[in-house]
Amino acid sequence: MRQMGLGVSAIGMGYHIAAWRHPDASPGGNMELSHAVRSIQAAERGLFDMYFLADGVGIRMYDEPPGALSRSSKNVQFEPLTLLSALAMVTTRIGLIATASTTWNEPYHIARKFASLDHISGGRAGWNVVTSVTAQEARNFGHEAAPDYADRYDRAAEFLDVVRGLWGSWEDDAFLRDKASGINFDPAKLHVLNHKGRHFTVAGPLNVARTPQGAPVIVQAGASDQGREMAAASADVVYAAAQTLEEARAYYADVKGRMAKYGRRPDSLKIMPGLMAIPGRTRQEAHDRYEILQELIHPIVGLSAIAGSLGDLSAHPLDGPVPEPVNPRMLSRAKILLDMARRDDLTIRQLYLAIAGGNGHRTVIGTPADIADAMEEWFTGGGADGFNILPPWLPGGLEEVVDQVVPELQRRGLFRTAYEGRTLRDLLGADPAPNRHVTARAAAE
Amino acid sequence: MRQMGLGVSAIGMGYHIAAWRHPDASPGGNMELSHAVRSIQAAERGLFDMYFLADGVGIRMYDEPPGALSRSSKNVQFEPLTLLSALAMVTTRIGLIATASTTWNEPYHIARKFASLDHISGGRAGWNVVTSVTAQEARNFGHEAAPDYADRYDRAAEFLDVVRGLWGSWEDDAFLRDKASGINFDPAKLHVLNHKGRHFTVAGPLNVARTPQGAPVIVQAGASDQGREMAAASADVVYAAAQTLEEARAYYADVKGRMAKYGRRPDSLKIMPGLMAIPGRTRQEAHDRYEILQELIHPIVGLSAIAGSLGDLSAHPLDGPVPEPVNPRMLSRAKILLDMARRDDLTIRQLYLAIAGGNGHRTVIGTPADIADAMEEWFTGGGADGFNILPPWLPGGLEEVVDQVVPELQRRGLFRTAYEGRTLRDLLGADPAPNRHVTARAAAE
Ligand SMILES: Cc1cc2nc3c(=O)[nH]c(=O)nc-3n(C[C@H](O)[C@H](O)[C@H](O)COP(=O)(O)O)c2cc1C
Ligand SMILES: Cc1cc2nc3c(=O)[nH]c(=O)nc-3n(C[C@H](O)[C@H](O)[C@H](O)COP(=O)(O)O)c2cc1C
Repeated sequence: MRQMGLGVSAIGMGYHIAAWRHPDASPGGNMELSHAVRSIQAAERGLFDMYFLADGVGIRMYDEPPGALSRSSKNVQFEPLTLLSALAMVTTRIGLIATASTTWNEPYHIARKFASLDHISGGRAGWNVVTSVTAQEARNFGHEAAPDYADRYDRAAEFLDVVRGLWGSWEDDAFLRDKASGINFDPAKLHVLNHKGRHFTVAGPLNVARTPQGAPVIVQAGASDQGREMAAASADVVYAAAQTLEEARAYYADVKGRMAKYGRRPDSLKIMPGLMAIPGRTRQEAHDRYEILQELIHPIVGLSAIAGSLGDLSAHPLDGPVPEPVNPRMLSRAKILLDMARRDDLTIRQLYLAIAGGNGHRTVIGTPADIADAMEEWFTGGGADGFNILPPWLPGGLEEVVDQVVPELQRRGLFRTAYEGRTLRDLLGADPAPNRHVTARAAAE
Repeated sequence: MRQMGLGVSAIGMGYHIAAWRHPDASPGGNMELSHAVRSIQAAERGLFDMYFLADGVGIRMYDEPPGALSRSSKNVQFEPLTLLSALAMVTTRIGLIATASTTWNEPYHIARKFASLDHISGGRAGWNVVTSVTAQEARNFGHEAAPDYADRYDRAAEFLDVVRGLWGSWEDDAFLRDKASGINFDPAKLHVLNHKGRHFTVAGPLNVARTPQGAPVIVQAGASDQGREMAAASADVVYAAAQTLEEARAYYADVKGRMAKYGRRPDSLKIMPGLMAIPGRTRQEAHDRYEILQELIHPIVGLSAIAGSLGDLSAHPLDGPVPEPVNPRMLSRAKILLDMARRDDLTIRQLYLAIAGGNGHRTVIGTPADIADAMEEWFTGGGADGFNILPPWLPGGLEEVVDQVVPELQRRGLFRTAYEGRTLRDLLGADPAPNRHVTARAAAE
């Protein structure tokens, strides 16, 4: 029987905008190692496939409306590659996914750090490839804004190509390490990349041996046409966002449909939408749990959650209708929010409450059976191969899912009851990652 | 009583060029986590100040003479920041020093990763600032060669300035995390850098909170005039290289003498020359231990150790005199080697045997008392504040120093008998790292 995959998006205090104010949260947990250790150990106890760290190379918020920034816990966090290297030492099986930007990095560093993490973790590393759209990030690297769309994706494609080339620098059995003869490696099994492209010129070889997975797992999280194409061509996992099964299905069919032209089987790519799951023994308890957090959203923070797309609405009455935006930003997202507001006739407050928790991801609040039903519907209905769980707060919100929802999924045969395989690639059922230089040589022969 | 500091340079298989062939070495240890864990735990058992990882963003050797590359174990290793993050979890007190290049990195990434490591390790991070001179590294970043000397150091100085500015983004007590009011931090204690310089334009703030040490420890390892100046201005530790006490003294006096103009006390900078120490219960045992490794140097590998400065001498008889180099490279180093050869009338083989172990660092082979004498002489004689121990092979060569030499130093009162202080800065007796934005504000008031 086909089983689902589960990841957890575990950066900082959790996904809900008011997470740090939760009565049981350690409010400085986003900079406490013990907090991250407890979170990842909960996820591993729950047999999750992966522990996923979103990232940005800059602070995430603008101070809009004024006062929003200083009310947010999302401004500081551990850097993912260092944190995951540490967490590799307190876990044994769960995958470790770090987000890293192709726009503000160099491929040699990225190839090297992920290869090193793959060695450190015994084959559990993954890279969420993002192109960094925000101006806050650009300004930390000498630019006023991110490069335009096409350019970012063009660079990303070449970046990934270089990284994969570097990961093939050494064949699996290149190292003989024969003390007697003094031969350390077979030079025929060292491949110097000598890449010269539009964005990068990289000689190689990588100064890290071929890794346990051959290549760390590739995760993709862009929803645009280029993002989908990149996922179909190169990703092992997609972290998607959808509110309805129709949306999820359309996205799923589209991305899987693009894979054939790259000679890939659809099953080798796992599409995992984000899911904020809030379980309770009863529906009432679940809703009460959610309300604890919703009530902690300060209006300024709520307004800031929509300001990024609709602009600063603080001059308008909170309990009045959502006005037409004057300077809408991130147009596609602005349209989604306005459609929501118009469809359900939401006030400004209702709108921010509706999105401030899951930030556009599906939110399911209910008994473990309700949540398992919701997951099963998408999983069997062509909308998902698994889910990236977004705990509203950490570690408690994750522990509740592990203790209540996971057993229900296992009872239904929808989720594993023990870890299998050796590497994250095995666990996900992803394609093996052949060494391209070896493949090319075989083709030439 | 003044006591010495001890670091260990612990990359890969150890310092000796034939380390991986040592009968007791695990020949693939340079890519085995257990090997690194055993090494750092030995160093911590020995109460060392720091575990130091040299680094390069490329392979280290040319294949010169042909066949040298495939006989070397130095081509692959863990990436230092990921490895030290992992090792932070299996140690509690020892400092963790990663080498990172200012020429092939961006300051935002470096500020962030070291800050993250400082948080993960509870205040034990340090950065060895290097400017990356090799063409092998340049070619992994779109260049044919490293930028020229002045340019590299100019960039390095600005790089360090930006990184320090970013480390001051948040004041120590910026985070109130007041659940009741919903105020996460005091905006008056957030400092946006807005750096605009010749090499970098970086807005900030850093998305990592102020670290336990305020700023990770700065290590410097360049011997040139600019390197010394940078050390005097900014470093907490210098990793130096000297063969004789005279050399060490001259270097020591010069660098310490430069500090006054930066308003620094000489004691706040620890000068630690590299020292390859090979102890034995008797002198004979120590020499026998060293010979095990010396005999394992394949002539091609020996020749490669001098080829970097004198060129490929493989056309000349190994047991004949060292010829005048035709195309000498790294001129200052070529001159040192030639002087050595002429002074002691060395053959080519004798020359490479003389330098292939310690690679230009002082080597002391003898009883624990001999080695402690040698260290004491420099320490009390104005040549060193401590030593960066270069174990010929790992972990055994380090364990021998910990078990035999450290107790002798302790008996003499020259070395600590227990860890003190909270952070690496405390341990080293380095200056505190005040937040420059706070200092500037105080000065303005
Ligand atoms: C579910 C999801 C998670 C994402 N996580 C990150 C992230 O952690 N860091 C980041 O810079 N971008 C992240 N992105 C942004 C994408 O990389 C992308 O820039 C954005 O979705 C716009 O999509 P597009 O670039 O394909 O148009 C994420 C996107 C989605 C849909
Ligand atoms: C003891 C010592 C250790 C060094 N370690 C490294 C290293 O790990 N990585 C690196 O790129 N350079 C390293 N260097 C090189 C220096 O950063 C510097 O480039 C070189 O010594 C030339 O010195 P200069 O740049 O001051 O002339 C080291 C230098 C010394 C003296």
